[in-house]
Amino acid sequence: MIQRYVYGKPYDTGAVVRPVRAQDGAIPYFSVTQRGDTITWSLTLHPDEMIFGLGEQVGGINRRGQLLRSWNEDQPVHTEDQPNLYASHNLLLFTSPERLFGVYFDDPGEMTFDLGWTDLDRAVITSVGGNLNVYVLTAESLTAICREFRGLTGRSYMAPRWAFGYIQSRWGYASDEDARQVAREHRKRGIPLDGICMDIDYMDGFRDFTWNRELMPDLPKLTADLREDHVHLIPIMDAAVKEDPESPVYAEGHEKGFFCKRKDGRDFVGAVWPGRSALPDFLNSEARRWFGEQYRPLLDAGIDAFWNDMNEPALFYSEDGLRHAWEMADKLRSDNPEVEDCFRLRGVFMGMANDPEDYRHFYHRMDGADGETVRHDRVHNLYGAMMTLATADALRQYDPSRRHLLFSRSSFIGAHRYGGVWQGDNYSWWSHILLEVHELASLNMCGFLYSGADLGGFGKNTQPELLLRWLQLGVFTPLMRNHSAQHTRDQEIYRFTNWQDMRAILTVRYALIPYLYSEYMKAALNDGMLFRPLAFDYPQDADACRTEDQLMWGEDCMIAPVYTPNARGRHVYLPEDMAFIRFRSAEDYDVSTLRKGHRWVELKANEMALFIRRGHVIPLATKPAEYVDAIDTRELRLLGWLDKDTAVTLYEDDGFTPSPKLDAGLREIQVWAKGKRAEAASRGMPVEAADVVIGG
Amino acid sequence: MIQRYVYGKPYDTGAVVRPVRAQDGAIPYFSVTQRGDTITWSLTLHPDEMIFGLGEQVGGINRRGQLLRSWNEDQPVHTEDQPNLYASHNLLLFTSPERLFGVYFDDPGEMTFDLGWTDLDRAVITSVGGNLNVYVLTAESLTAICREFRGLTGRSYMAPRWAFGYIQSRWGYASDEDARQVAREHRKRGIPLDGICMDIDYMDGFRDFTWNRELMPDLPKLTADLREDHVHLIPIMDAAVKEDPESPVYAEGHEKGFFCKRKDGRDFVGAVWPGRSALPDFLNSEARRWFGEQYRPLLDAGIDAFWNDMNEPALFYSEDGLRHAWEMADKLRSDNPEVEDCFRLRGVFMGMANDPEDYRHFYHRMDGADGETVRHDRVHNLYGAMMTLATADALRQYDPSRRHLLFSRSSFIGAHRYGGVWQGDNYSWWSHILLEVHELASLNMCGFLYSGADLGGFGKNTQPELLLRWLQLGVFTPLMRNHSAQHTRDQEIYRFTNWQDMRAILTVRYALIPYLYSEYMKAALNDGMLFRPLAFDYPQDADACRTEDQLMWGEDCMIAPVYTPNARGRHVYLPEDMAFIRFRSAEDYDVSTLRKGHRWVELKANEMALFIRRGHVIPLATKPAEYVDAIDTRELRLLGWLDKDTAVTLYEDDGFTPSPKLDAGLREIQVWAKGKRAEAASRGMPVEAADVVIGG
Repeated sequence: MIQRYVYGKPYDTGAVVRPVRAQDGAIPYFSVTQRGDTITWSLTLHPDEMIFGLGEQVGGINRRGQLLRSWNEDQPVHTEDQPNLYASHNLLLFTSPERLFGVYFDDPGEMTFDLGWTDLDRAVITSVGGNLNVYVLTAESLTAICREFRGLTGRSYMAPRWAFGYIQSRWGYASDEDARQVAREHRKRGIPLDGICMDIDYMDGFRDFTWNRELMPDLPKLTADLREDHVHLIPIMDAAVKEDPESPVYAEGHEKGFFCKRKDGRDFVGAVWPGRSALPDFLNSEARRWFGEQYRPLLDAGIDAFWNDMNEPALFYSEDGLRHAWEMADKLRSDNPEVEDCFRLRGVFMGMANDPEDYRHFYHRMDGADGETVRHDRVHNLYGAMMTLATADALRQYDPSRRHLLFSRSSFIGAHRYGGVWQGDNYSWWSHILLEVHELASLNMCGFLYSGADLGGFGKNTQPELLLRWLQLGVFTPLMRNHSAQHTRDQEIYRFTNWQDMRAILTVRYALIPYLYSEYMKAALNDGMLFRPLAFDYPQDADACRTEDQLMWGEDCMIAPVYTPNARGRHVYLPEDMAFIRFRSAEDYDVSTLRKGHRWVELKANEMALFIRRGHVIPLATKPAEYVDAIDTRELRLLGWLDKDTAVTLYEDDGFTPSPKLDAGLREIQVWAKGKRAEAASRGMPVEAADVVIGG
Repeated sequence: MIQRYVYGKPYDTGAVVRPVRAQDGAIPYFSVTQRGDTITWSLTLHPDEMIFGLGEQVGGINRRGQLLRSWNEDQPVHTEDQPNLYASHNLLLFTSPERLFGVYFDDPGEMTFDLGWTDLDRAVITSVGGNLNVYVLTAESLTAICREFRGLTGRSYMAPRWAFGYIQSRWGYASDEDARQVAREHRKRGIPLDGICMDIDYMDGFRDFTWNRELMPDLPKLTADLREDHVHLIPIMDAAVKEDPESPVYAEGHEKGFFCKRKDGRDFVGAVWPGRSALPDFLNSEARRWFGEQYRPLLDAGIDAFWNDMNEPALFYSEDGLRHAWEMADKLRSDNPEVEDCFRLRGVFMGMANDPEDYRHFYHRMDGADGETVRHDRVHNLYGAMMTLATADALRQYDPSRRHLLFSRSSFIGAHRYGGVWQGDNYSWWSHILLEVHELASLNMCGFLYSGADLGGFGKNTQPELLLRWLQLGVFTPLMRNHSAQHTRDQEIYRFTNWQDMRAILTVRYALIPYLYSEYMKAALNDGMLFRPLAFDYPQDADACRTEDQLMWGEDCMIAPVYTPNARGRHVYLPEDMAFIRFRSAEDYDVSTLRKGHRWVELKANEMALFIRRGHVIPLATKPAEYVDAIDTRELRLLGWLDKDTAVTLYEDDGFTPSPKLDAGLREIQVWAKGKRAEAASRGMPVEAADVVIGG
C-alpha cells in the first residue's frame, strides 16, 4: 500500500510516474513539526531497528547511526564522515520486530537524515524547503516494498548487452591514437574489452558536443574502426556549456534563453573545465530538447554511448564567488596574520567550489511552475537527473532502433529510468571496495541497477593487488569500468606485472555475462533488484541481517569480495547451504559445498569467490570471448548444487532491442540428477553440467 | 646477531645505545645502488614474504604492498594513501619460508619504503641523504629480533601506574573550572578517571611554560584539589616558543642562542599557535638543558605529567612561505583564471603548512657535529624525539623521586626510552579503530609500549556507538585517553545517552589494570612487547600470520575489537584453544571456551571480548575502583582455562619507583584444579577462581 502526504506546495520532480491520491490524516509512524519552511519528521527507534536506503551515500548498508544529507555535490572525498555525495535518493526502509515500512521524501531541495546519530534511539528527518510529497510504503517484505517503490517511480533503465563488457577509461585519453592504443594493447594480450571511455580531453577546449579535430581528425573513422574491433567509444558530456560567443551551441542557447539566469536576467556564469560557462536549464523541457538536438553530430559520427558528468552541477567558482574570495583574502592579508586568520586564508579559495551561496543566485524556468522562475537551490537535486533525461530523450528520438549506454554522475529518483550511474570519484583505497558493496545494495533499492564504481580507484595511486581484488568485485557489477584520474599511476591492466591474473578474472566476467545480463534484465523487467543485502532475502536470520560485506546477486547467488590487503581468505556468513566456487579463471576453478553458518574461505590474491544457493544452478558461457558479441550462449556449462530436478531460466534477446519482452526471451534449461552426475538440456540440446554438485 | 654497515658520514641520532662494530663487507640480502647522495637498497620478495615494522604509519600490520615515507609531519589526515605521519621508526622485519631478518636504518633524514607497491615482488628502500648506519638483525623469531633491537636501542619508557587510568582530554579545556567540571561530572556518575589533559588553551597566549592567570588564578591549588580527588592534571607543551621579547623564556632563549637559526644568523621564525615563534634547538644539549629548566614552575605547581605536541616541528607558515604564497596568489589573480590556475590558487595557501622548503632554511648546532651547523632537513626526523628527551631529562633531574607520565606526538627510535606516544590527530571514523590496532602492533615492535589513540576520534564528530566500541579497544591500551578537537561534538562519556554502557566498559579496564600494569612492566623490563601480531606468536600458522584485526595482549591473552557499525558480533581466528570472556562490565560477563579455528562470536554494542589462552589464567581486581590508587590487588579474581596446575606471576610495585626491579615485584599466584572447580592462593591467602574453566 502506498499513501501520499502533501506538505506545502510540492514541486513536480518527475520521480513518481503513478498517481497516488493524497491522504488527509496525519502521516503514520512519525511525529511532524514545522518551523518556518523547515519540516521535521521524527520517530523513536526500536533497539533492533535497522534502516536501509538513501541510495548513493557513504556508510554501511544499515544506515542506523548515520548523519546524512541530500545535497548533490561534486564531492571526491568519500570518507566515512562525508554526509552527501553526487545524488539524492530519499527512500528509507525501516524494519524492526515491531514494524516494516518504507518512506519516500519526494523533495528536490536539501534534506538531512539523522538516523540515530545524535541519539541512538531516535531518527530525525528534515526538509529545509518543506514543499514535497511524502509517500509511505507498506508491504510484506523489504523486497516487496522496493518493488512497490519501483511501481511508483517507474521501470529501471536497461542497458544494451555490450555494456556488460569490460570498459577501460582514463582521464587523459585525448586522441585517436590514445583510443586505438588502448584497444590494441588489450586485444594483443587477449584481455577482453568492449568499451573505451573518453574523459574531457577529447573535446575541443572542453566544449560540449565538440571534439578536438587535431587529435581526432576523423571521428567517424575512429568509431567505425573500433566497432570493427568490437569496441565502443564512450565520450563524456559535461553539464555546463563554455561561454564562447563563437561556439554555435553557446550562441544558440544564449540567444534562445536556454541557460539558467540570474535575477537580473543575465545568464549565470560559473567556471568549470572550460572556464566561464553557462548552465543549460535542464528543468525546462524546451531547453532539454534543444540540448538533446546537439547530440546529433556525435550520433552521426557513430557514437552510441555517453556518460554525463559535472551535473550536480559542479562549480569551481562563480564570478561573485571569486570576487568575494579575493575580498576576503585581501582583508586577511598581513605579514603576521593571526593563526585563525591563517586558517581562514587557507579556506578562502577552497570554499569557492560548489559554494551553496552560488546556488541561490540563479533560476530555472521549470515546467509546471506556472511561468514562475524557481530559484535553483530549491530544486538543486534535480539538475543531474534532468540532464540525463535530456540525453536519454535525444538518444531515443534520434536513434530509436536500439538501446544505448548512458550513465551519469549526479542523479535523483526518476533518473533510474533514463540511465545508470557510476559512483563518482572514489579513491584507490581498499575501503572503497567495501564502499562499492554498500552503494550497490542501496542503489539497487532505489532502482539504479546499472551501476559500478571506478575499479582500481579514481583518485590517488592504485596498486597491483588492489586493482586485482577490485576487479574481482567488478566481475559482478553491470558497469565494469577501470577508470582513473590524471596524474595518478597508469591503471590499464596491461601496465602491471600481474596482468595475467587480472585477465584471468576478466574471463570469469565474460563467462558470467549470459547469467548477469539475464538477471539484470529480469530485475529491470520485474521491478526487482540485481544486488540485495542478505537482510532482504533472510529477514528472520539475525546474522544475515547484520552482514555488511556480502550481497545476494541475482536469484541464485551470493558474493563476498576480499577487500583487505595481503589477505589469503575471508570470513563469510552462509545464510543457507551453498556451493562455493573458487575462481582463478573461467576455466580454472574449484567447486565445493559449504553448510549454513559462519565459514572461512581461502582465497589467494588471484582467487575470487562465488556462492550458489543449494538447489540452484547457474549457466556460464563455455567458450572464451574477448567481447560480448562473441559470447556464444549455445554452449553453456552449469555450476551449482542440485537437490532435485530443476530448471534454470535464462533471459536472452538481441542485446539492443528498445522494447524487450520478458516472456519472449526466456529459455529454459532442464537439470536433473542421473546417479551421481548431473545432466542438463535446453531445447533438446545437451548442456554441460559436470560442475553441478549432487545431493547433500 | 647484529651487524652494522656504514654509509656516508652517519649522524649521531641517539637511537642506538649499544656500540656495534662496523662490518666491512657488503650488506646481506640487499643490492645497493647510489646516485648522488641517495642510496637505494633493493631486494626481491618471496611470494609469501611478509614485512612488518615501520612503527607509526597507516596501513596494515603486514606492510607488503605499501609505499611509505619517513618524514615527520603534522598530518591530521590518516587515510590509506598517507605515506607519512608524525614519526619515523625505520625498523623493518622480513619473514618468508626462506629467510627471517630485521633491518634498522638509523637515518634522521627522509627515507622512502616501496614494499611491493610498484612491483608486488620487489622492495626498494631509499635514503635521500645517504649518511647513516644500517643494522641487520638476525635471530630465531620475530619476537627475538624485536628483543635484540631493544637491546640495541635501549629499554622502553615506564609510565607510573596511575597513567594506566582513564584520561579525559579536549581541545578547548582552558580554565580551572573546565578541569574541575570534568572531574566532578565523572565522579558524580562513578565514571573512573585518573587524569585530565589540558590542550593549548590553558596557556597564556599559547606561550610555553605559562598558564592563563585569569582563567587559572591558582594552579597549585587546582592541581592539589584534583590530586585530592585522585586526578592528575596533564598540560600540553608545544615545541615552538612565541617570539615575544616581553616573555622571559623567549628573551633568554634568544639571547643565549638556543633557537634554530637561519643561514644569516637570525632566528628562524615560523608561525604556529602563538603566531610567529622560534624553534628551540633540541638537537643541542645545552639548549635542551635550558628548555628543561623552564619546567620548574609547572613542577612546583604540582604538575607531574606532560604531553609534547607540534614537535615534528609543525609550521603553519614561515615568513618566506607566506610572502611566497602571496606572490603566487597575486600572479594567479584574474577575473577569469584558467582552470589550472584556479586549482593552483586553491593550493597556494594550503601549501604553506609544513612546507618542505622551510625545513631547508634553518640550522642546528647539533652535538657531535664538530661545531658545524647541520641543516634541519638532514636531521628533521629527530626533532620531536629530542624535545621529549629535554622534557624527560628535566623531569628526572627536578623530580627524581618518581616516574612521570610523558608522551609525545612526534618521535624517532630512541624516544621510546623517554616517553610514550599517542597516535596523533585521528578522526572519528570506524576505520580508525582498526588503524589503532595496526599502529599498536607496529609501535610495540619498535619499543613504544606506552601508547594509545584518541578514543572516539580527535577530528570530525563522534557518535555514541563509535565511542563505545572504541573504548572497548582502549580497555587494553596503556594510554587510555578520550580526546577530541575544538568545534567537534562534545565527547566526554557523560554527554551521551548510553554513558552507562561506557562506564561499564571502564570498570573492565580498572579490573584489568593489575594485569595490564604487570604485563606492561614485564615487557618493558624484559625488552618484550605488550601487543604482538598473531604472526609473532604463531609463525607456523598461515591463518594467524595473515590476521590483521586481532592482537596478542600480554603473555596470556588475545584481543579482537569490534570496529564496524551496527555489528552484533565478529569473526575471530583462534590460533589455539582459548577461553572467551564476553564482558559487559567487570561484574557482568560470560566465560566459555572456544576451539582453535575460525569462529564467530556474538558481541552486542555493550559487549567486548577477551580471549585467554588455554592453560593460562589472569587476575582481575575484585573491588570496583574509580581511580588507580583505589585498586586493591589483595583481592583478586582469576579468569581463564586451566589444564593442569599452574602459577600466574603478577608484577607489582609502588607504581612510581624510578628504578623498578622485576624480581623484587613478582608475586606468584598458585592455581590448581580441585575436582571440577579451580582453586587458587597467593602467599597463603585464597584467591577467587570461580571463573576459571577446568579441563578440555
